[in-house]
Amino acid sequence: MFLTRTEYDRGVNTFSPEGRLFQVEYAIEAIKLGSTAIGLKTKEGVVLAVEKRITSPLLEPSSVEKIMEIDEHIGCAMSGLIADARTLVEHARVETQNHRFSYGEPMTVESTTQALCDLALRFGEGDEESMSRPFGVSLLIAGHDENGPSLYYTDPSGTFWQCNAKAIGSGSEGADSSLQEQYNKDITLKEAETIALSILKQVMEEKVTPNNVDIAKVAPNYHLYTPSEVEAVISRL
Amino acid sequence: MFLTRTEYDRGVNTFSPEGRLFQVEYAIEAIKLGSTAIGLKTKEGVVLAVEKRITSPLLEPSSVEKIMEIDEHIGCAMSGLIADARTLVEHARVETQNHRFSYGEPMTVESTTQALCDLALRFGEGDEESMSRPFGVSLLIAGHDENGPSLYYTDPSGTFWQCNAKAIGSGSEGADSSLQEQYNKDITLKEAETIALSILKQVMEEKVTPNNVDIAKVAPNYHLYTPSEVEAVISRL
Amino acid sequence: MFLTRTEYDRGVNTFSPEGRLFQVEYAIEAIKLGSTAIGLKTKEGVVLAVEKRITSPLLEPSSVEKIMEIDEHIGCAMSGLIADARTLVEHARVETQNHRFSYGEPMTVESTTQALCDLALRFGEGDEESMSRPFGVSLLIAGHDENGPSLYYTDPSGTFWQCNAKAIGSGSEGADSSLQEQYNKDITLKEAETIALSILKQVMEEKVTPNNVDIAKVAPNYHLYTPSEVEAVISRL
Amino acid sequence: MFLTRTEYDRGVNTFSPEGRLFQVEYAIEAIKLGSTAIGLKTKEGVVLAVEKRITSPLLEPSSVEKIMEIDEHIGCAMSGLIADARTLVEHARVETQNHRFSYGEPMTVESTTQALCDLALRFGEGDEESMSRPFGVSLLIAGHDENGPSLYYTDPSGTFWQCNAKAIGSGSEGADSSLQEQYNKDITLKEAETIALSILKQVMEEKVTPNNVDIAKVAPNYHLYTPSEVEAVISRL
Amino acid sequence: MFLTRTEYDRGVNTFSPEGRLFQVEYAIEAIKLGSTAIGLKTKEGVVLAVEKRITSPLLEPSSVEKIMEIDEHIGCAMSGLIADARTLVEHARVETQNHRFSYGEPMTVESTTQALCDLALRFGEGDEESMSRPFGVSLLIAGHDENGPSLYYTDPSGTFWQCNAKAIGSGSEGADSSLQEQYNKDITLKEAETIALSILKQVMEEKVTPNNVDIAKVAPNYHLYTPSEVEAVISRL
Amino acid sequence: MFLTRTEYDRGVNTFSPEGRLFQVEYAIEAIKLGSTAIGLKTKEGVVLAVEKRITSPLLEPSSVEKIMEIDEHIGCAMSGLIADARTLVEHARVETQNHRFSYGEPMTVESTTQALCDLALRFGEGDEESMSRPFGVSLLIAGHDENGPSLYYTDPSGTFWQCNAKAIGSGSEGADSSLQEQYNKDITLKEAETIALSILKQVMEEKVTPNNVDIAKVAPNYHLYTPSEVEAVISRL
Amino acid sequence: MFLTRTEYDRGVNTFSPEGRLFQVEYAIEAIKLGSTAIGLKTKEGVVLAVEKRITSPLLEPSSVEKIMEIDEHIGCAMSGLIADARTLVEHARVETQNHRFSYGEPMTVESTTQALCDLALRFGEGDEESMSRPFGVSLLIAGHDENGPSLYYTDPSGTFWQCNAKAIGSGSEGADSSLQEQYNKDITLKEAETIALSILKQVMEEKVTPNNVDIAKVAPNYHLYTPSEVEAVISRL
Repeated sequence: MFLTRTEYDRGVNTFSPEGRLFQVEYAIEAIKLGSTAIGLKTKEGVVLAVEKRITSPLLEPSSVEKIMEIDEHIGCAMSGLIADARTLVEHARVETQNHRFSYGEPMTVESTTQALCDLALRFGEGDEESMSRPFGVSLLIAGHDENGPSLYYTDPSGTFWQCNAKAIGSGSEGADSSLQEQYNKDITLKEAETIALSILKQVMEEKVTPNNVDIAKVAPNYHLYTPSEVEAVISRL
Repeated sequence: MFLTRTEYDRGVNTFSPEGRLFQVEYAIEAIKLGSTAIGLKTKEGVVLAVEKRITSPLLEPSSVEKIMEIDEHIGCAMSGLIADARTLVEHARVETQNHRFSYGEPMTVESTTQALCDLALRFGEGDEESMSRPFGVSLLIAGHDENGPSLYYTDPSGTFWQCNAKAIGSGSEGADSSLQEQYNKDITLKEAETIALSILKQVMEEKVTPNNVDIAKVAPNYHLYTPSEVEAVISRL
Repeated sequence: MFLTRTEYDRGVNTFSPEGRLFQVEYAIEAIKLGSTAIGLKTKEGVVLAVEKRITSPLLEPSSVEKIMEIDEHIGCAMSGLIADARTLVEHARVETQNHRFSYGEPMTVESTTQALCDLALRFGEGDEESMSRPFGVSLLIAGHDENGPSLYYTDPSGTFWQCNAKAIGSGSEGADSSLQEQYNKDITLKEAETIALSILKQVMEEKVTPNNVDIAKVAPNYHLYTPSEVEAVISRL
Repeated sequence: MFLTRTEYDRGVNTFSPEGRLFQVEYAIEAIKLGSTAIGLKTKEGVVLAVEKRITSPLLEPSSVEKIMEIDEHIGCAMSGLIADARTLVEHARVETQNHRFSYGEPMTVESTTQALCDLALRFGEGDEESMSRPFGVSLLIAGHDENGPSLYYTDPSGTFWQCNAKAIGSGSEGADSSLQEQYNKDITLKEAETIALSILKQVMEEKVTPNNVDIAKVAPNYHLYTPSEVEAVISRL
Repeated sequence: MFLTRTEYDRGVNTFSPEGRLFQVEYAIEAIKLGSTAIGLKTKEGVVLAVEKRITSPLLEPSSVEKIMEIDEHIGCAMSGLIADARTLVEHARVETQNHRFSYGEPMTVESTTQALCDLALRFGEGDEESMSRPFGVSLLIAGHDENGPSLYYTDPSGTFWQCNAKAIGSGSEGADSSLQEQYNKDITLKEAETIALSILKQVMEEKVTPNNVDIAKVAPNYHLYTPSEVEAVISRL
Repeated sequence: MFLTRTEYDRGVNTFSPEGRLFQVEYAIEAIKLGSTAIGLKTKEGVVLAVEKRITSPLLEPSSVEKIMEIDEHIGCAMSGLIADARTLVEHARVETQNHRFSYGEPMTVESTTQALCDLALRFGEGDEESMSRPFGVSLLIAGHDENGPSLYYTDPSGTFWQCNAKAIGSGSEGADSSLQEQYNKDITLKEAETIALSILKQVMEEKVTPNNVDIAKVAPNYHLYTPSEVEAVISRL
Repeated sequence: MFLTRTEYDRGVNTFSPEGRLFQVEYAIEAIKLGSTAIGLKTKEGVVLAVEKRITSPLLEPSSVEKIMEIDEHIGCAMSGLIADARTLVEHARVETQNHRFSYGEPMTVESTTQALCDLALRFGEGDEESMSRPFGVSLLIAGHDENGPSLYYTDPSGTFWQCNAKAIGSGSEGADSSLQEQYNKDITLKEAETIALSILKQVMEEKVTPNNVDIAKVAPNYHLYTPSEVEAVISRL
C-alpha cells in the first residue's frame, strides 16, 4: 500500500517528506476562499478596504465586520474564517490593553503582530489559548506608532511581513498586480482610498455600494468609515 | 491507496486540502434535518416562531421546547440537536446572570451571542466546557437592549450574523425566499406574527395548531405565547 | 479505498457526513435489545411496569431491578444496559439529595431529568463523571411535584420529552400503538395499571406472573408493588 | 473497503452498530476459558466450590486460590483471569474495611457487590483505580448479613444478579442444567456441599481430590474447608 | 478487508475476540527466548540456579546478574528482559524496606510477590510507576519467612503461583519434566543444588563452569554462591 | 498490505527499521527549500550573510529579518521556517538575559547553542515550551566570548557543530564547496565579508542589492549592516 | 489484509508476536550507523578511543565531542545520535553531582550506569525526563571507584554489562574480534592505548590523525588526550 501525500496532514502539525506542513497549506486554501481585503500605507496613514459579501438582503450589513479595531492606533482587515479572526483580534485586544496598563504607553504595531503570530504558530499543542488546528485566517494589520504608519500581513503559519501595500483573499492575485502598478510611496491617503476601492471593484462580482464594502484608516487613530464617507469615496471612482 | 476526502474529518477540527472543516459542515447537515424556525425583527420587537414536530399524540406538546428564554430581554429559537441547544442556552443564562450581577445591568444581545459562539468555536479542545464535537445546532437569538430590538443567527462554526429576518432548519431554503418577498423593515409586530406563521404553514406537512407550533416575542421582554395567543394568530391567517 | 459510513463512529462523539452521531444511534440499538418498560400518567399519579426476563429459575426475581426509586417522589423504569442505568440512577439520587439538603425542598421532576441528561450528553469527554461512550439505556422517569404528576422519557442522546404514556425496549413499537389506542387523560390509576400490564402481556413471550414483571407507582410517593399487589393486577386482566 | 465487525472493539468501550460492546463480550469469552466454580444458597448459609486446575505436580495446591475471603461475612469464588480477580477482591476488602471503620457495622453483601461492579463498569476511562480494559473475571459472591444468606453473580459488564444457585467458567453450561435439576430452596448446607462437588466432578476431566478442588461456606462466617473437610465431602459422593 | 488476529494487540491491554490478551502472550514469548532458571524448595531452604549466557569472553561474568537479592530473606532468579527485571526488583526492594521501617519486621514472601504482581498487572495505564507494556520477564522468587521456605513463580500477566520446583526460560519445558522426575519434598538442600545444576547442564549448549551459571540459596538468608562454591557443586555432578 | 517506509514518521519521534528519525529528516528537507545563509569566522570576529528573497516590490525589505541579535555578543542567521526561528531566538534571548541576571556575566556562545538544541531535541513530548514537531530551521550562531569568536551550526535534530565557515539553505551545497576553496583561518573580517557576498551572489537568481541581502558581524559585538554598509561590500565584489 | 511485522513498532514500546521490542531494535540500528568507539580496561585504568568523522575541513574538530566527562572519576565514549548522548550525559552529571552533595563521596560507576539505564528504559511513558522514543545511542562508560577501574557498556534497551574490552558503532563487529585476539587482563595502559588506536585504524576509511580520533583515560581521573598526546600514541603504531 503506497500512502499518498495526503496521509501526512493527519498529525495536525507534522512535516511531509518534502518538508511541508500540510495543515498550514490547507488553512491557506481556506483563505483563498475568503473575501478580498486590501491595505495601503501612505505617509499620512494606512487605508484598509474589504469586500463584505452580503449573501442575503435580510442580513444587517453593519454586522458583517471584516475590519475591526484592535487598539485606538491599530486596526485590521481579515480574510478567511471570521470566527477564527475574532479570536485572534480578541487576543490582540487583551495584549494591547495589558501593555497600556503595565507600561503606560501603547504597544508597538510590530509587537502586537508578533503576539498574534505566536498564538497562530502554536496550534495543535493542547494548551489553553491555542487552537487544535491552524487559524484559518490572514490579517492585514494597520497601525501607527512612534515609527509612523505601518502595515503588516500575517498568514496561518504564524509568519508576518511588513508591506507597503497588500491584498488577501480570493481576489488577491489580481489585486496584488494592480497594487504593484498603481502604488507608490508618495500617494496621499485620499489617493490610497481611491486605489483600494477601484481595485476591490475589479475583483467583486457586483456593484460596489456602502453596503457591500467597508473602509477604515489609521491616521493616526483607527476610524471605520461611515456609509456616507464610503459613498464619498465611491463617487470619486 | 488513495484516500478520499472523507478521511479528513476524523481529526474533529482539521482542515481538508481544500481548506474546509468537515466536522463543521457535517454538523450543519444535522441542522438541515431539524425542524424549521423563523425570526423577524420589527421596530416594536422581534418575533420567533418554530415548528414542534409532535411525533406521538402521547407526547406533552409543552415539553417540546424549541424556543427558550435566555434572559428577560433575550430569547432564542433553535433547530438541530435539542440537547446541544440546551447546553448552549444554559451557558448563555449563566453568562447573562453573571453580567447582571457584576455590572448591575443586562448584557447586550451581541455580547451574549459572542459568548455563545466562543463556546461553539472551541470544540475538540478537551477543556471543561467545550464539546468534543461541534454543537449540532443553529440558533436565532432575539433580543432588545439599549440599541433597540435585534436578531442574530449563529451556526455550528461559531460564526454569527445580524439579520432582519431569517429561517433555519429543514424548511429554511423555501422560508428564506418567502421572507425576502414579504419582509420589510416597517412591518408591525402583529404583521410579523402573521408572516412567520404563514411561512411555517407552507413548510410544515400537517395542519398548524397551537400544539405543533410555538411563538415568542421580545418586545422589549421575552414572552412565550399561550395556546390561546397562538390560536389568535392562526385565526388571522 | 472508499471508506464506508461505519468508519465515522470510531471517534465516539463525531458527526457523519449526513450529520448523524453513530455512537448515539448504536446505543439506541442496544435499547431495542432490552426488555420492555411502560409508563402511564393519570391524574392520580404515574404507573410504571416492566418485563423482568428471568433467564434462569435459579435467579432471585427480586434482584432483577428494572424499576428503581430516585427520591421519595421520583422513580424510574429502564431498558437497555442495567449497569449503565444504575450509574445514572445513583447520580440522580445524589443530585436530589443535594438539592433537598441545599434548598430544603424536593427537586422538581424536570430538573432531575435534566441533570440525568446533562450527564448522558457529555460522554466521550474524559472528565470524571462521564462515560467514554453513550449510556446504553433509556429511562421512563415518573414523578410527582408541585406541578402534579409527570412522566419523562430520556434516550442515549441526552434528549428528554414529557409524555402522557410511553413504552421503551424491544416491544416498544407495538406497545406504543396499543397505548395510543387505549390511553386517555382521564383514566384512573387502577385503569392505568391494567392497561400497562395487558400491553406488557402482549409483547412478552411467556405468561405474566409476579415473578417476571414489576409495577410501581408515584402517587404522590414512589411505591414498588409487592408480589401480591402485582398478583391483584394480573387477576384483573 | 468494508470494515468487518471486529473493527469496532478497538475503542475499548464503544458500541458496535448492533448496540453491542465487544470488549465486554470478549472478556466474557475469557471467562469461558476459566475453571468452573459453583455456588448454592441454603437457609443455613452459602456454599462455594471450585475446580483448581493444578497444571503441574510441582505446584503448591494451596497457593492456587480461587476462593477468597472479602470480609468475615463475605467470600467469593472466581473464574477467569486470577490477577484481575485479586485486584477486585483487594478493592472490595478495602471498601468493607472502610465501611466497618466509618459506620461500626459490616457492609451489606449487596453494597459490596455494587462497589465491585462500579469499578468493573468504568474500564477504559483512565482514572486511577479502573483498568484500561474490562476485568476478565466473573465472581460468585457469597455472604450473610441482616437479610440472611445471599449469593450474587457478577460479569465483566459490571452487571450483577442475585441467585439461588449459579455456575461460572468453562463447565458452566452443563453445571447450570444440573443445578436446575438438583437444587431446591430447602436443601441443607450439607446437601449443598454434596451437590456442588458432584456437579464439579462431572465437568472436571480428572478425579476429584482435596488437591484439585476448594470448598468454602459463609454460614454465617466465611470458612475455607481444610483438605480433610474436603475429603469428607468427597467421601459422601 | 478481514483483520487478522494480530490487529488486536495494538491496544496494549485489550481482549481479542477469543478473550485473550495478546501483549501478555507476546511478553511470554520474550521469556521463551531468555536463559533458563530453576528453583527448588527443600525443608532447609530454597535453591535457585541460572544459566548466564556469556556472549563474549571480554564480558565480566559477575556483571551478568540473573539472580538478585530483594531483601535478606528473599532472592529471585529471572528470565527475559534483564532491564525489566531490574525495575521489578528495585520496586520490591523499596516495598520490603518500607515494610521493615513501618512494621519493624520483614515482609512476607507472599506479600512481596503480590506487590511485584500488582505492578506487573497495571501496564498500559499511564501512571507513574507502571510500564507502557507488560514487563517482559518471569521471576522465581525464593524466600524464607514465618511460614518457612517458599518458592513463587510470576509471569507477565501479573499472576503468581507457589511451587515446590519450577523452571523458566528457553529450556523450561525439558527442565520442568526433569524436575517432576527428580524432585520430592524430602530432598536435602545439597541434593537440590545437584539436581538444579544437572538439569541446567542438560539444557545448556556449552560446558557448565562457575563463569556461566549462578547459584543462590535462601536458607534462611539469601546467599549467592562464590565461584568456588559453584565449582564444588559442579564437581558433584 | 506492505507498509512503506513512509508509515513510520507518523509517530513524530519514532525510529524507522533502519534506525532513522523521519520527521527530523523531513524537517531538514524544509531547510533545503529555504534561502541561503553563510557564516565565516575570522580572528577579528564572525561574519554572517543571508539572501532575503523579497517576493514582491510592495514588501518592506527591512521587515524580512533573517539575521537576528540574540544578545549583544551573539547573533544568528537562519534558513527554513522563519516563525520557528523566531521562537528559538526568543527562547535564546530569555536564556541569555536570565544568565546575565543570575551570574552577572554574559552566557558563553556554546551554552547558548546547547540551550537552543535542548529545546529542539525535545519535540513531540507535549510539555509547555517544546513544539509538537521538529523546528524546521537551521541556525548559524555567531558569537564572541572569553574564548574569542566562534561560529556554531545547528540542525533540526538538536545536534550542533563548531565551524570555521558554513553555508545553510537551498544553495548550501555549492556554497560549502566555494567556502572550502576560498576560506582560510587567517582571512580578515573584510575579506570574509567579500567572500560571503560573492558566494551568495553565485547561488542567488537575481542581482545582489542592499534590498535582497543582509550582512551582520559579531566583532566583538553584534552589528547588522546598514544598507550603505552593505552597498560598500557589494561595490568591492 | 495481513499485517507485516513492521506494524508492531508504531506503539513505541510494544511487544511483537515474537516477544520483540522493535523500537529498541531500530534504535540499535541507529547505532550501527554511528562512528566506532572502543574501550579497554587495564589494572592501571581504562582507555577510551573514538573515531570522529570530520565531514568537512571547515568543521572545528575539537567541537565534535564523542568522549565526554561525567564526573572526575567517570567518562564515556558514545556511538549513535550525539544529541541523545548529550542528554544522557547531562542527566548523569546531575546525578553524580547530587550524590556528591548528599553523601559527600563520589557515586560508584555501577550506580551511575544504572541511573543512565533507568532513564533509557522508560521511554514512551510521557513523564518529564524520559524521551518519547528510545535513546538512539550506546555508551562505553569508563570509571574508577573503590572497586578499582571498570568499563560498562549500555544499549538502547536500558541493559548494561560490565566488560574488560568492548567496541560499539559501525565497525564494532570487526573491532570486537580484534579485541578478543589482542586483549588480556595484564596489558598496561600504554599497551591499551596502542591496541585501541590500531583497531580504530583498521575500521576507519581514512588515515588516523589527531583531528579525527579522540582518546581519553580514567586512571584514576578522567583525562582527554591533547592533540600531541594523541600524536604520541599514533607514532607508536
